[in-house]
Amino acid sequence: MPAAHPDLRDSPLLQACRGEASSRVPVWFMRQAGRSLPEYRALRGSGSILDAIQDPALSAEITLQPVRRYGVDGAILYSDIVVPAFAIGFGVDVTPGVGPVVAEPFRTKADLDRLRPFEPAEDAPYVAETVRQVVAELGPVPLIGFAGAPFTVASYLVEGRPSRTYGLTKAMLHGDPDLFRALLDRLADMAIASLLSQVEAGASAIQLFDSWAGALAPDVYEEHVLPASAKVFAALAATGVPRIHFGVGTGELLTLMGDAGADVVGVDWRVPLDVARARVPGKAVQGNLDPAVCMAPWEVVADRTRDVLRRNAGRPGHVFNLGHGVLPELDPGVLAKVVDLVHAEGRTDG
Amino acid sequence: MPAAHPDLRDSPLLQACRGEASSRVPVWFMRQAGRSLPEYRALRGSGSILDAIQDPALSAEITLQPVRRYGVDGAILYSDIVVPAFAIGFGVDVTPGVGPVVAEPFRTKADLDRLRPFEPAEDAPYVAETVRQVVAELGPVPLIGFAGAPFTVASYLVEGRPSRTYGLTKAMLHGDPDLFRALLDRLADMAIASLLSQVEAGASAIQLFDSWAGALAPDVYEEHVLPASAKVFAALAATGVPRIHFGVGTGELLTLMGDAGADVVGVDWRVPLDVARARVPGKAVQGNLDPAVCMAPWEVVADRTRDVLRRNAGRPGHVFNLGHGVLPELDPGVLAKVVDLVHAEGRTDG
Repeated sequence: MPAAHPDLRDSPLLQACRGEASSRVPVWFMRQAGRSLPEYRALRGSGSILDAIQDPALSAEITLQPVRRYGVDGAILYSDIVVPAFAIGFGVDVTPGVGPVVAEPFRTKADLDRLRPFEPAEDAPYVAETVRQVVAELGPVPLIGFAGAPFTVASYLVEGRPSRTYGLTKAMLHGDPDLFRALLDRLADMAIASLLSQVEAGASAIQLFDSWAGALAPDVYEEHVLPASAKVFAALAATGVPRIHFGVGTGELLTLMGDAGADVVGVDWRVPLDVARARVPGKAVQGNLDPAVCMAPWEVVADRTRDVLRRNAGRPGHVFNLGHGVLPELDPGVLAKVVDLVHAEGRTDG
Repeated sequence: MPAAHPDLRDSPLLQACRGEASSRVPVWFMRQAGRSLPEYRALRGSGSILDAIQDPALSAEITLQPVRRYGVDGAILYSDIVVPAFAIGFGVDVTPGVGPVVAEPFRTKADLDRLRPFEPAEDAPYVAETVRQVVAELGPVPLIGFAGAPFTVASYLVEGRPSRTYGLTKAMLHGDPDLFRALLDRLADMAIASLLSQVEAGASAIQLFDSWAGALAPDVYEEHVLPASAKVFAALAATGVPRIHFGVGTGELLTLMGDAGADVVGVDWRVPLDVARARVPGKAVQGNLDPAVCMAPWEVVADRTRDVLRRNAGRPGHVFNLGHGVLPELDPGVLAKVVDLVHAEGRTDG
């Protein structure tokens, strides 16, 4: 692996993730790589993201584009949460305009046999190669690796496509909890293998995306989902890299998501950041500008950006981000101005 | 209008809505009329719901079907929240499998001219006629009338179709708040006219569906949305019928949704009912079994149903319901058993 840049450890992003005071409030955006960038669209063409991800030079370039354009404090790997399942041949594709689609969804115990262990070096060597190429270019800017959390990946494998209700997933979770636990345990192991290989290749932080955990009642989350996510965070502890935990609509789950072992808890815009802070005492927080607000005129975006900063009140341990991914139709110029505003006005003096 | 049944006022549903002790915990289900019932599918055929709604005999029968089958404590009118906009010719249809679709979405001030006042007796006489036919059959069971809340209806008119992000709606709300306020004010007046006519025709309670308000941050909701919903509730006060306020993913908004003037605050399954109770002191609550849980084996459904009852702990002012609508694929037999369980085991002894 490439030698870490000497200034990396003291980068604002990693300092904030560790809850330390930083020279400025760090900022990056979920889905900053890809989506709304014209230079991305020019480079990428059409077709499944899973094809693009297998080309390290292309994926590295896409990962670097927003760092160059915006001057964000972190890069997020251009990849997808279904890559491990795809790479072991589970039969998953990402259909443009739809999302992950599974030819033969996970429905019975026999389907466990289709989920063999994920071996990053053999099954998806392109991911670590992308990480290495990105890190070689980034210098003192950290790269954030990521994986899908067991529940969210399971929801795709069980439903077979994006769902609004998660009826099949919940039916399995409640109706055959042993099978669901076994499924999540395998997906946890796959996430661990993926994240460890990304860290080994040079990622300086990791984010576990449990995007759809917010569909669950807190006691259901705690009993059926948290243990598998906690296993992932525990396995990453020895690496020493900050661990971020993110989901949407998770207001009632924030405390539990912190308890799962995260150093940083992601917050969407539904919970004011000062309220969120009180739900995860001792943890850093990440968020939480509404990505849809970025479609409004700049004065509004600036006002809402300042509101996030004001609610954090300069406390150390704040990573500025959106509350969910960049909207595809967004003008990238808006995000550039958000970065400048956060860097100019964000305080970390407590 | 038909004379009210002498036992109606003391029905368990209306007692619970008023926060009074009732002879049993009342139960009904959002979307109980239609969707998963085979007798509904047999009757209804295909085509837009907006056609079916214009046939009072058909709509009355669909409204009554779940009351007969389940023995629920309330009927909910078979209708749709876009009916007033449709009836004044705004150009909205409900596409099966998609939802409300608007040919020319609301985008500028000029579009206000397309939203003339809604006159129920002229524009949609079939709604009140359906109410009258239903009430004549229901006897001592209350009929719940409903309307879409200004924000949720606006989101359809502005986006032009169901949205996950509400980017256009939020851009207008923040970018042209005067226009958005004018839009919501007109939609409030339409909801008021619709609800008053339903009450006049015999509805004993009303529910305002702000299904997608949960997409908003609390301060945004309070400033830009609450006033229009409060106007609706205030206009209904003189009727004396209980007013229910419902949305999905509204954990952070529950207090504000109560403050808007509701007597009963609907709660989805993301917030445990005891936690929700504490957020709306002095109000009745409605909910909150996860509709997707109903896809699990009966023992699980029974367990989760009992958990809702246990969390309410027998306090008066609890209307048992799902946390959102019945899933179309649900076996109706499950809901019948839920009704029996709530009636057998629910307590209202405080």
